[in-house]
Amino acid sequence: MMSTTEAKSTTPPRVLSGMRPTGKLHLGNYMGALYNWVKLQNEQSADGGRKYECYFFIADLHALTTDYADTSKMQENSHHVILDFLAAGLEPELSTLFVQSDVLQHSELFTLFAMFTPLGWLERVPTYKDQQEQLKEKDLATYGFLGYPLLQAADILVYQPDFVPVGQDQVAHVELTREVARRFNHLYPHAKGEILPEPKVLLTPSPRLPGTDGRKMSKSYGNTILLSDPEPEIRKKLKTMVTDPARIKRTDPGNPEVCPVYDLHKVFSSEETRRKVREGCTTAGIGCIECKGWVADAVVAELAPMQERRRRYEANPALVTEILQAGSVRAQRRAEQTMVEVRAAMGLGR
Amino acid sequence: MMSTTEAKSTTPPRVLSGMRPTGKLHLGNYMGALYNWVKLQNEQSADGGRKYECYFFIADLHALTTDYADTSKMQENSHHVILDFLAAGLEPELSTLFVQSDVLQHSELFTLFAMFTPLGWLERVPTYKDQQEQLKEKDLATYGFLGYPLLQAADILVYQPDFVPVGQDQVAHVELTREVARRFNHLYPHAKGEILPEPKVLLTPSPRLPGTDGRKMSKSYGNTILLSDPEPEIRKKLKTMVTDPARIKRTDPGNPEVCPVYDLHKVFSSEETRRKVREGCTTAGIGCIECKGWVADAVVAELAPMQERRRRYEANPALVTEILQAGSVRAQRRAEQTMVEVRAAMGLGR
Repeated sequence: MMSTTEAKSTTPPRVLSGMRPTGKLHLGNYMGALYNWVKLQNEQSADGGRKYECYFFIADLHALTTDYADTSKMQENSHHVILDFLAAGLEPELSTLFVQSDVLQHSELFTLFAMFTPLGWLERVPTYKDQQEQLKEKDLATYGFLGYPLLQAADILVYQPDFVPVGQDQVAHVELTREVARRFNHLYPHAKGEILPEPKVLLTPSPRLPGTDGRKMSKSYGNTILLSDPEPEIRKKLKTMVTDPARIKRTDPGNPEVCPVYDLHKVFSSEETRRKVREGCTTAGIGCIECKGWVADAVVAELAPMQERRRRYEANPALVTEILQAGSVRAQRRAEQTMVEVRAAMGLGR
Repeated sequence: MMSTTEAKSTTPPRVLSGMRPTGKLHLGNYMGALYNWVKLQNEQSADGGRKYECYFFIADLHALTTDYADTSKMQENSHHVILDFLAAGLEPELSTLFVQSDVLQHSELFTLFAMFTPLGWLERVPTYKDQQEQLKEKDLATYGFLGYPLLQAADILVYQPDFVPVGQDQVAHVELTREVARRFNHLYPHAKGEILPEPKVLLTPSPRLPGTDGRKMSKSYGNTILLSDPEPEIRKKLKTMVTDPARIKRTDPGNPEVCPVYDLHKVFSSEETRRKVREGCTTAGIGCIECKGWVADAVVAELAPMQERRRRYEANPALVTEILQAGSVRAQRRAEQTMVEVRAAMGLGR
């Protein structure tokens, strides 16, 4: 008899995550998501196989929930995101990489979930009113914006994944997905167990990553360092980065614990460098320019192999198209497996 | 140079309609929809070709908007509806017959329409509040029930049809579809003309068809005569049908204009028979039983060839499956043609 542990080792747990096509990605996107995805992709199980079966996608339908009125940059943005996926180290042989809108089963499951999801569940999602407030210049009193968390639930559950890797701030978002799964399983019970098991949250680190103005790095603040920025650009941006505001003169000692530049050192520099920074800063032994030079060295070193990979893929757009096509086919096949069960459970088809 | 008339004759105008899988169809379903569909299918253009390119489908997703909580009969009901489609004279060589949920592009276009459709448009659809009132025993405060008219818009527009054949009472339903098409064409203009031209209403007759209790024939009233009812059943049901309530005794003269049985004569009997009925009824020359016998003769004669066809298809379920499979493939191919344009216009894909 096969033990459950042995059975499990033949199909590693599935993991799924997506990212909106916002254009060229920055260090914040990298540390908050991509870095963790690459780690998940590369982790090995005890028997030397893959620890996880990974699905990563470009969420172009999600982008439409807020940006339906101007889609002129969408395809270009999607192209940059896939280039950055590959640059960051996601490998098509190890992960299934695809564009959300290429897999119709996402929309299909969204449509089916709509049938049994109370409006109240969606109206009560905290981000619904918040975001409408924040994006006042856009008209977001749309049916699709209200349904956005349901589309997210479909994106996830259509792969019947074991885990959804998210940062601490996104744990709440997965809760509605779990609720939808529970309602589905309750309404459409299945003799051989639940069709849509509730996925578990896989908490991934998302360190505070400040932009050059000290606020959270974000495209909308214009304070980003792009994964694809050339070295001189990176050095120039970091040279103007804000520091400990109390350190006014070169001779004032500084406090690394309140300095955004030190936040970057924490993420990208070696313990050796960080020690030198702490010592030099607190004794006014080094100036901020010197400290910023060191963090630039670390960032440049981190990005160099990525930029090398990016150039290779940029030079071969046909290969990138091929990768996404193959990824779509794999994703469609897996999603279809789920949908065959879902359709039968809901009495669809013939 | 080719005139537009000649160009048009190569692709006949497309026509599309669907029906919910309510189970075995009755005379009301037949006269309100199927009868007209068969006529559209069989009409010939001046050059001897088809006048219309016809798509007819079983709207199983629509059934879910109200019946998501009990789907145990859905597949059986769908099977009966397709048998009745074929029995009524729809022919797979002339019409594309399929099940809605087999064509994922319906859900895809619904999802895309959601992005730019104001919630207010859907909340203001008159049937939204009405139906919630009428179907109080079901919990219809769902996201999908609110979105139902949008799914209908997607069902229609995904085939870029020229016409939607509807009865007078459904003309208003097509208006939202036309509004959605206008908004799409406005947001996503296209150099070569509108991607989703507004379909026109093709008004089809829907005569008043009373059930055996005199109210509108409807499954929910339990007053139907099924297309597949055997002759003795039809005669038995019609024998108990209500008549002119003022004609109490056999010797009382009756008034055909207020008699539900005469409504059936109007639809199914010859002018010759109707004349005999009018004369006999108004002079008390015939009794109601006799009059009902004549209408039963007409209904039985109308249904006989259908029942013969139904038996042939019932005996060959593999053929029915094949017909729906081939229909799905054809419908998918046509819908995909639309979606290629829609996706590009909205900036989706890569």
